[in-house]
Amino acid sequence: MANKERLKQHLETMSQYTATPNEGMTRYSYSPEDVKTRKYMKEKMAEYGLTVREDGLGNIFGKLEGKKEFAPSVLIGSHFDSVPHGGNYDGPAGVIAGLEVAALFQEHNIKPTYPLEVIAMIEEEGSRFGGGLMGSRGINGLIGEEDFHTIRDKDGISVIEAMQEAGLDPTLPKHRDPKTMKAFLELHIEQGPILEEENISIGVVDTIVGLTQFEVTIEGKAGHAGTTPMDRRSDALITAATIVSQLPKLAKAEGNGTVITTGQFAVYPNGSNVIPDKVIFSIDLRSGEEASIQRVMEKVKALIESYQKDGIKTSIEQQLYIQPKELSKEVRSSLKESTGKLGISSIPMLSGAGHDAMVFSDYTEAGMIFIPSKDGLSHCPEEWSDLEHLAQGVDVLFETAKRLTEAE
Amino acid sequence: MANKERLKQHLETMSQYTATPNEGMTRYSYSPEDVKTRKYMKEKMAEYGLTVREDGLGNIFGKLEGKKEFAPSVLIGSHFDSVPHGGNYDGPAGVIAGLEVAALFQEHNIKPTYPLEVIAMIEEEGSRFGGGLMGSRGINGLIGEEDFHTIRDKDGISVIEAMQEAGLDPTLPKHRDPKTMKAFLELHIEQGPILEEENISIGVVDTIVGLTQFEVTIEGKAGHAGTTPMDRRSDALITAATIVSQLPKLAKAEGNGTVITTGQFAVYPNGSNVIPDKVIFSIDLRSGEEASIQRVMEKVKALIESYQKDGIKTSIEQQLYIQPKELSKEVRSSLKESTGKLGISSIPMLSGAGHDAMVFSDYTEAGMIFIPSKDGLSHCPEEWSDLEHLAQGVDVLFETAKRLTEAE
Repeated sequence: MANKERLKQHLETMSQYTATPNEGMTRYSYSPEDVKTRKYMKEKMAEYGLTVREDGLGNIFGKLEGKKEFAPSVLIGSHFDSVPHGGNYDGPAGVIAGLEVAALFQEHNIKPTYPLEVIAMIEEEGSRFGGGLMGSRGINGLIGEEDFHTIRDKDGISVIEAMQEAGLDPTLPKHRDPKTMKAFLELHIEQGPILEEENISIGVVDTIVGLTQFEVTIEGKAGHAGTTPMDRRSDALITAATIVSQLPKLAKAEGNGTVITTGQFAVYPNGSNVIPDKVIFSIDLRSGEEASIQRVMEKVKALIESYQKDGIKTSIEQQLYIQPKELSKEVRSSLKESTGKLGISSIPMLSGAGHDAMVFSDYTEAGMIFIPSKDGLSHCPEEWSDLEHLAQGVDVLFETAKRLTEAE
Repeated sequence: MANKERLKQHLETMSQYTATPNEGMTRYSYSPEDVKTRKYMKEKMAEYGLTVREDGLGNIFGKLEGKKEFAPSVLIGSHFDSVPHGGNYDGPAGVIAGLEVAALFQEHNIKPTYPLEVIAMIEEEGSRFGGGLMGSRGINGLIGEEDFHTIRDKDGISVIEAMQEAGLDPTLPKHRDPKTMKAFLELHIEQGPILEEENISIGVVDTIVGLTQFEVTIEGKAGHAGTTPMDRRSDALITAATIVSQLPKLAKAEGNGTVITTGQFAVYPNGSNVIPDKVIFSIDLRSGEEASIQRVMEKVKALIESYQKDGIKTSIEQQLYIQPKELSKEVRSSLKESTGKLGISSIPMLSGAGHDAMVFSDYTEAGMIFIPSKDGLSHCPEEWSDLEHLAQGVDVLFETAKRLTEAE
């Protein structure tokens, strides 16, 4: 069973390495805080008997060899970068879970047939270099070598330059042959309210939702708030507000965990006595079913276009489209079996956010579990998960890892 | 009849004095552009036989004495400051009309019984010192002497300092005894679409609308756009959009020229994948009937408060309340009589915007006419009115001024 004292020590130590003390976790890839966290994790990996290496992106691997030679590894881990002013759990909880599984293998003197690898990845959030999932995408060959010279942070520093500044070696291999991976397991906080509200310890992710994002522009006609009669207005804000207020019902009617959100909304010229002539807003639409995304997308487009009248011009630009990803059936059933064996409550879940496991799922058998998030909060200093739940998650991963590595 | 060549010359000359050539009229009070415009207007006043003086705020008066000694004057004019990147007509059209009436008195060698005074006022827009209507409010004693030392522009320069820099004398009297005024007449562009659409030359303003402004705050709960199910959200933007989309029907149902506008609307934290936890928006509500303002105001408050549920908190702060002002019945009927006599089409109108005439109406018999605005546009470089309509407006004012000054 997981050692809560060790988990607590990992959490407390890694939580110190923030660029914004007392204002949440800010740990950008290759920053001084990354370097301190990296040193701690590598020390712990070595302490647990793992052979430590870093790849050409600074992803960290701690390997416990198996009895079978040249056999593919079972990887367990997550990322250790953060959003600005985020929390201490999004990412690190999964790395800490990997470290603790390795500690348990050592403690119980378990010899696996297939190697076990703890993995700690960079730049999942994209807070420094944009885009996100850079560590897992790099490992799986989805980013070309030349891109690491051209992708730059807001200060114009490239990935390669940032790595060199941090004392890392970007000339090491980045891409990993899928044949070297047997499975990928990730523990993550839910970042939503469901497990807490349902009083369930573990969510076994079956699908990571697909996602589309749009930018919508509504153009009307400016006018003086006092001198333009109501029936002679082409008010871009009234039209945009009318559209946005109708979006939730389209998602609710669809079901399948479909969610729709307008997070960005800008009004021009934004004067209190001027009728707005332009509004630009975002739409973020997600669902576990690709058909649901398509159906709601068409309804949203039709809704917006129906307001193209009476001096109002509408336009829609699709900015992102990602298909839903179903995770490995085999790994899911193994995770489920482990919760049953351990008597830990679990439910199947949809992941509403993207994760490194989503990238691995195209190259190896990938599985993922969620633990409850207090008040459903994430990406904020209040982000918090119970140590008890983290320990239960580790137990599930430990049980599953023993099975997947064919440990004695 | 008005001389269109003179009107055109005034317009073209004064339109040159902008701080933003080719990007609309920007003429702040006491700026170099103010000084150039001031010089031109004073020269023209002298040319038309008027005795020129400036008061302690830099308002300009050009007086044609009447036959009756110590008699109150009939004032005709408007303001000559502008909004940033505004048009050439809002303000100056009314000053030019005053100049042309004086020119016509001279041309026809008319000797009035009561004095005629052309008036050109500063800072109606409030673009430099905020608040607005400073010229007319100063003349009518609504601003204390000490305030002109404390009211400052964005660079920290007080009214007094700005006047001194412009070579004006702030020690001269500012307040004018109401007993010295018999009437105040103002020509202004409509800044709305009604006259143009109805193909009418002159609007005789019967009431300047009352106005109230609110700031509304809607607070909900932030959350991840992907991981928060639709039925567990307290989305501040959805609530705000639902409220704002319902505002126009409240104004339309009330009638009486009631208009309602949300011009400012800010969303927090404004990230495309974050459910907004706060929206702050403005409401501007105007009507010619005070009871209409009150009734719609109560309905708006009740509407907003009805959304205070399901994790949403609403608050409303009233920031401004101005009662509707009915203009002088006597002057209105005189203006109406003039249009009839001249065969110029006219309708009674509500003014949706505040004007200097609104301030004078508490101290003297005030009347106001509108001329058509092309496409209803104002406060923008495209602001334009037909010289023919301006000339017709001058003819109406000339006719009315002769009657009110009891000219021979």
